[in-house]
Amino acid sequence: MRFFTLTLLLLVGVSMHSQVTQPVEDSLNIRKFYDVSLLHGKSYEWLDHLSNKIGGRLSGSVNAERAVRYTREQLEQLELDKVWLQPVRVPKWTRGIQEYAYIQVEGGNTTVVNIAALGGSEPTPRTGLRAQVIEVQGVEDLQNYPREMIEGKIVFYNKAMEPDLIDPFDAYDRSLNQRYHGAVQAAKYGAVGVIVRSATHRIHDQPHTGTVDYGDLPQDERIPAAAISTRDANYLSGLLSLNRGTSLYMKMNSQNHGEVDSHNVIAEIQGSEFPDEVILIGAHLDSWDLGDGAHDNGAGVVQAMEVLRLFLKAGIQPKRTIRVVLFMNGENGLRGAEKYAREAQGRNEQHIFALESDAGGFSPRGFSLEATDQQLERILQWKPLFEPYLIHYFGRGGSGADLEPLKDSKIVLAGLKTDSQRYFDYHHAATDTFDQVNQRELELGAATMASLVYLVDRYGFSEENKI
Amino acid sequence: MRFFTLTLLLLVGVSMHSQVTQPVEDSLNIRKFYDVSLLHGKSYEWLDHLSNKIGGRLSGSVNAERAVRYTREQLEQLELDKVWLQPVRVPKWTRGIQEYAYIQVEGGNTTVVNIAALGGSEPTPRTGLRAQVIEVQGVEDLQNYPREMIEGKIVFYNKAMEPDLIDPFDAYDRSLNQRYHGAVQAAKYGAVGVIVRSATHRIHDQPHTGTVDYGDLPQDERIPAAAISTRDANYLSGLLSLNRGTSLYMKMNSQNHGEVDSHNVIAEIQGSEFPDEVILIGAHLDSWDLGDGAHDNGAGVVQAMEVLRLFLKAGIQPKRTIRVVLFMNGENGLRGAEKYAREAQGRNEQHIFALESDAGGFSPRGFSLEATDQQLERILQWKPLFEPYLIHYFGRGGSGADLEPLKDSKIVLAGLKTDSQRYFDYHHAATDTFDQVNQRELELGAATMASLVYLVDRYGFSEENKI
Repeated sequence: MRFFTLTLLLLVGVSMHSQVTQPVEDSLNIRKFYDVSLLHGKSYEWLDHLSNKIGGRLSGSVNAERAVRYTREQLEQLELDKVWLQPVRVPKWTRGIQEYAYIQVEGGNTTVVNIAALGGSEPTPRTGLRAQVIEVQGVEDLQNYPREMIEGKIVFYNKAMEPDLIDPFDAYDRSLNQRYHGAVQAAKYGAVGVIVRSATHRIHDQPHTGTVDYGDLPQDERIPAAAISTRDANYLSGLLSLNRGTSLYMKMNSQNHGEVDSHNVIAEIQGSEFPDEVILIGAHLDSWDLGDGAHDNGAGVVQAMEVLRLFLKAGIQPKRTIRVVLFMNGENGLRGAEKYAREAQGRNEQHIFALESDAGGFSPRGFSLEATDQQLERILQWKPLFEPYLIHYFGRGGSGADLEPLKDSKIVLAGLKTDSQRYFDYHHAATDTFDQVNQRELELGAATMASLVYLVDRYGFSEENKI
Repeated sequence: MRFFTLTLLLLVGVSMHSQVTQPVEDSLNIRKFYDVSLLHGKSYEWLDHLSNKIGGRLSGSVNAERAVRYTREQLEQLELDKVWLQPVRVPKWTRGIQEYAYIQVEGGNTTVVNIAALGGSEPTPRTGLRAQVIEVQGVEDLQNYPREMIEGKIVFYNKAMEPDLIDPFDAYDRSLNQRYHGAVQAAKYGAVGVIVRSATHRIHDQPHTGTVDYGDLPQDERIPAAAISTRDANYLSGLLSLNRGTSLYMKMNSQNHGEVDSHNVIAEIQGSEFPDEVILIGAHLDSWDLGDGAHDNGAGVVQAMEVLRLFLKAGIQPKRTIRVVLFMNGENGLRGAEKYAREAQGRNEQHIFALESDAGGFSPRGFSLEATDQQLERILQWKPLFEPYLIHYFGRGGSGADLEPLKDSKIVLAGLKTDSQRYFDYHHAATDTFDQVNQRELELGAATMASLVYLVDRYGFSEENKI
């Protein structure tokens, strides 16, 4: 009974705001996605399993393979048209069981600080590494120092994420360089190690990891690199301002193990009219190892799976093929995404649209889009259909790292835009756990994704297909 | 340097989207509010004190008076034009130290369940109350039972908040009747007590309190009323479906103490051109007693205070008087709001706009507005100025309970609309604590409020004043 009331409200809303009349069927079908997701959703249960029964699932780990098996099994139970694994070679890196650092000031007082090896980091020598510390504000600040001030020291990159940027992803992007390229740049100046301020606005005790890239630096010149918690970064910076003789001892036995076998997990509903046109929904299945990867990117994984399930439960047969790809190695190499794109090109598959959720399982706000003016205009025509669900954002912006290799002149790429002010409280840290994901927010995201996929499937992007 | 880049981007954004050209000065001033709030904000520190140094502050309690004194002192330190207290008589009710319930099934097994007296509830007899339980789905379901099925029993209202409503406030509103009027209705059928399913989507162990209203029911016919946690509500419902003989024992020594003296806290910056026109920013200073009232409504209190501070720090002198009113007794009586409105009418003050934040310290999404078509149209002209801050929602809707007594044909009322999917996880429960408020989200809300207040101050709502 209430269903019809809501639907009527929805239709009124649409006719008031839209210049183009939307078919009633579209509002009804979109309402179905939200109803099924909120009343009979499966995404939260799947995420509970991925997070609490499996946990952190770094590429090459046993847990990553358990996640491959679990998601394949769950997708097979949905009775889709096709579920398969695509082999991928991935780098394997392990954190090791020793990860330890303390600060020593002149006079001998020591304070333990919280660090975590950056992903891919070389270990320290077995007896650890002790050196004086020099603080710099980002990679670009290195050039302000003569080599002799850096040589033999541990470089402490302490550039903070800027709080005045409204979108935390902008602040993250601007802080990324010191984590990603900091070690290779510091090594060129003769530094013996690197610690990097964690990329989070929050002042807390958790180090936030992430990839360090040594580029083509020879093996014997690679120096160990760790993230330090923001609270300890502030403490260390304060000490250094008082006493430049402060030294740091760090010990890590992380290890690179070369490449191992892993898989992308792929599942699809085949299109009834244009089975050769593929709409892809992607998410990376791997995660960092410190937390359980609930927001990054367990949420995206279960939302992608849920989109297929919502089509089935809502009884909507797509005209085009809707394919979910759970990419392996989204965090530290994008090997799964590259392999998928390469093979898709080899098979001459036509991907018209790809959507990724990789901004946490928070309230959906809309979509960031990589599209031509004409394609964007088409999508904006659908905006009124989303208003009853408080989805307002349809702007240009990056989609998701795993979709980049698919980019060509025809495909439209999209990323689910979430309310991401809290995202970097959890990102790549031990705080990224299931209990920080809100069930409703996760479910609303899945339904929002299904709705856009539905409209793309129904109307496509070619000229003659306008509503 | 970056400030100017952002500003330029902002201006481009505005000229692209807006049909009306906005003065550059407005974008610059709005940017200032966000910069000061995010870089040098005070709201989070104030909230820390209100939540952690004071705590829950129910009307009539010592803590409520401490909150009056603290907020007055803090406002006085800002060096505003005027800070004062307005005396208000408020009801005083105390929870008491005994609050206890267990379920007993036929055969004797007992299970303790989590309850909390509803605000204003009568106590049970000293030895507690034991009776069989009858479950009903909301007040309207009572009429489906003959009096003899209800007489002498405890009525268990178990209507759940509906998950398929997108805005949780809609679901809350639809569940409110059983908590507010459930006791008086059940008493008419001869029930001896009432327990009400907590108003939250979350299945957890926390009871969520809130006002119970006995209307004009004579004192000796008033029956005790408590909230029960959603997990225990589900458990009890399951037991009842197996065994209708299930009984509940409950004991509460809550107490109504009549009326006591308290205060609204008021502060203002006087307008330079139209000092007699008042723009009001309101929030209720009292809270329920189970948590520390950080979201409800500590967040709104510190955001209102911060708006005044942002004007000062940004160096913007308003043309109209901007007044903050921290209302006492927003939770269980609205005495502060009624007193304020009555005296304002008596003084013939002209309130042109009133804004309340009472939807938690979450990411701001926009404003719900009570306005004429013409007033709404004026506000919609400002929408492009908010887009860089991801503020998109400007729709009709209720403002805030404390503003209702001010309503007349001229005033525009507004409520800050937040991303409120999590709100009812905390609302009126022990989980409403400072650690659940995100600093950035709180600060973004304050800047968003200041921006709308600024535009209303600058352009007003009269015909000749259009941009």
